[in-house]
Amino acid sequence: MTVLDAAKAIVERPKGSADALARLAGADMARVDALIAARMQSPVSVIPALADHLIEAGGKRLRPLLTVSAARLVGGDVDSAVKLAAAVEFIHTATLLHDDVVDVSQLRRGKVAAHLIWGAPSSVLVGDFLFAGAFELMIETGALGALEILARASRIIAEGEVLQLTRAHDLELTQATYLEIITAKTAELFAAAAEAGGVCGGADAERRAALRAYGLNFGLAFQLADDALDYGGATETLGKNAGDDFREGKATLPLLIAIARSGPREAAFWERAVGRREQTEPDFRRARELILGSGALGATLDLAAEYAQRARAALRIFPYGEWRTALEALSDFAVSRRA
Amino acid sequence: MTVLDAAKAIVERPKGSADALARLAGADMARVDALIAARMQSPVSVIPALADHLIEAGGKRLRPLLTVSAARLVGGDVDSAVKLAAAVEFIHTATLLHDDVVDVSQLRRGKVAAHLIWGAPSSVLVGDFLFAGAFELMIETGALGALEILARASRIIAEGEVLQLTRAHDLELTQATYLEIITAKTAELFAAAAEAGGVCGGADAERRAALRAYGLNFGLAFQLADDALDYGGATETLGKNAGDDFREGKATLPLLIAIARSGPREAAFWERAVGRREQTEPDFRRARELILGSGALGATLDLAAEYAQRARAALRIFPYGEWRTALEALSDFAVSRRA
Repeated sequence: MTVLDAAKAIVERPKGSADALARLAGADMARVDALIAARMQSPVSVIPALADHLIEAGGKRLRPLLTVSAARLVGGDVDSAVKLAAAVEFIHTATLLHDDVVDVSQLRRGKVAAHLIWGAPSSVLVGDFLFAGAFELMIETGALGALEILARASRIIAEGEVLQLTRAHDLELTQATYLEIITAKTAELFAAAAEAGGVCGGADAERRAALRAYGLNFGLAFQLADDALDYGGATETLGKNAGDDFREGKATLPLLIAIARSGPREAAFWERAVGRREQTEPDFRRARELILGSGALGATLDLAAEYAQRARAALRIFPYGEWRTALEALSDFAVSRRA
Repeated sequence: MTVLDAAKAIVERPKGSADALARLAGADMARVDALIAARMQSPVSVIPALADHLIEAGGKRLRPLLTVSAARLVGGDVDSAVKLAAAVEFIHTATLLHDDVVDVSQLRRGKVAAHLIWGAPSSVLVGDFLFAGAFELMIETGALGALEILARASRIIAEGEVLQLTRAHDLELTQATYLEIITAKTAELFAAAAEAGGVCGGADAERRAALRAYGLNFGLAFQLADDALDYGGATETLGKNAGDDFREGKATLPLLIAIARSGPREAAFWERAVGRREQTEPDFRRARELILGSGALGATLDLAAEYAQRARAALRIFPYGEWRTALEALSDFAVSRRA
């Protein structure tokens, strides 16, 4: 397959959309946004300033969207779901703040990363503030089942982050270990967000499991697409630098597949540029060519599409309706999105 | 007052003790320790290694001791109190890990700070792991009232830490602002630990408030004594470096009082050594002499003793008994301790 063929195959994938769900959940999400804005306030002015920098930059609010949609799908207590959704976004924002400190990232959501403006200490502590605030919100719902799901998810995310930290530059990482890492650090929060919304809506065990499966598979598709975008996307649309993973020497799936398919000459290149992180400016372009040319980008997106398909399939137990249809369209969007 | 007189006055304060309470609560605290050891396990080996480094170093376990003792004092569900106590110690440990990253501290509990061994990223993430684990433990008790208290405390601690971060080197900090900072960053967790234990024990509103007042005043006494020890203690007994606050340019109460009592010649010294942190080796000795000589150390300990007295007084509504007596003795210990 030529680079051009590979690029074409990527563009020609079925396009999903977040639009239908965003429209359906618009009013609920406006309440979520208002709650987020209210709860990041503090008499200590650095806190709302720093939190606002990240939260106002937008992001896609996909995780709280899953919480609200799951509650709507099963038809239940939306007031509690709105609180849980805000809590989910707080947990997500807290992990972003801590991640950016850990990875010394430069850009986030198209803006200079918070720690570069307010310093790493403030980012760490404001993350803690948001994390505690998330639990306060959850406790107000009185939904112990949902609390349990989200506390467990928070613990698993931290475990995933530490695992990634210790294995990030390991070029011999297996695909299985890589999937284990992204399941913990990314997919688990999507799974918990959807399941907790369902619990709020009074879902039985079967529906809870289905919502969890939707979120988990959606999250895996989302992260794999993210990994692919780092080699296939443009900085302007990403809201972060394309090639960040490469420059940080992060062993993501496109890279791991390309390395597995490499000959001895490329092996030396990967070992130098990623293993030892001795990079020169043209190295990212070469890596991009090798990843596209070897079909590694396509293989990553194929796997992402497979997870998106599983997410879609998990919804089959729910009666046909606008919420189900919109969530189905969202699952393809995880893969087809350009940012 | 000469330096010698000041030192004498400090030594001659009434001595409290943690011994009676440690003996009474020994069996409960052994269960707390076992639970802590069990819940810091993770398949990601860095996590228990790093957590164990800090937790096994001991520390005084004063916060969980308050939780267990408060539950015993009101006579209630000790199983839940043991879980809450372990959660309280997890929250405390998480804040220590993040604090040491924020302050770039070298020593903690007599050992090299964790971030110097495993790196700041691991310390941040293991802190997050412990924080999430704390909420999992609390949720298992089903005690929403206690959860609410401890989630709120966690948020307030983060606010206090950020406030301290932004005002730490401000030599014009008023005593009121300083007390506001330590109320949030230290006393709040003691207050919440005691109150949550009381809630577990089924305390009514009056007793809850009394336990909260005990914890809050105990915490203030504890922190002020800590500030004094940084100028009056020895590194060997402290488990951290004496003079750390000074070297980090932290405006603690002994320093603020000494500065307020300084003439113009000393003012220039404080401005250089603390304000601009341009320090030479003999500067800490000079600061120590000024703080002892001006009576600032004594004044700080007087205030600590006042809070300890308030903590003791808060217990009056409880019937006389061994738990009350032991908690009373503990309140003086906050001030008389040497480490």
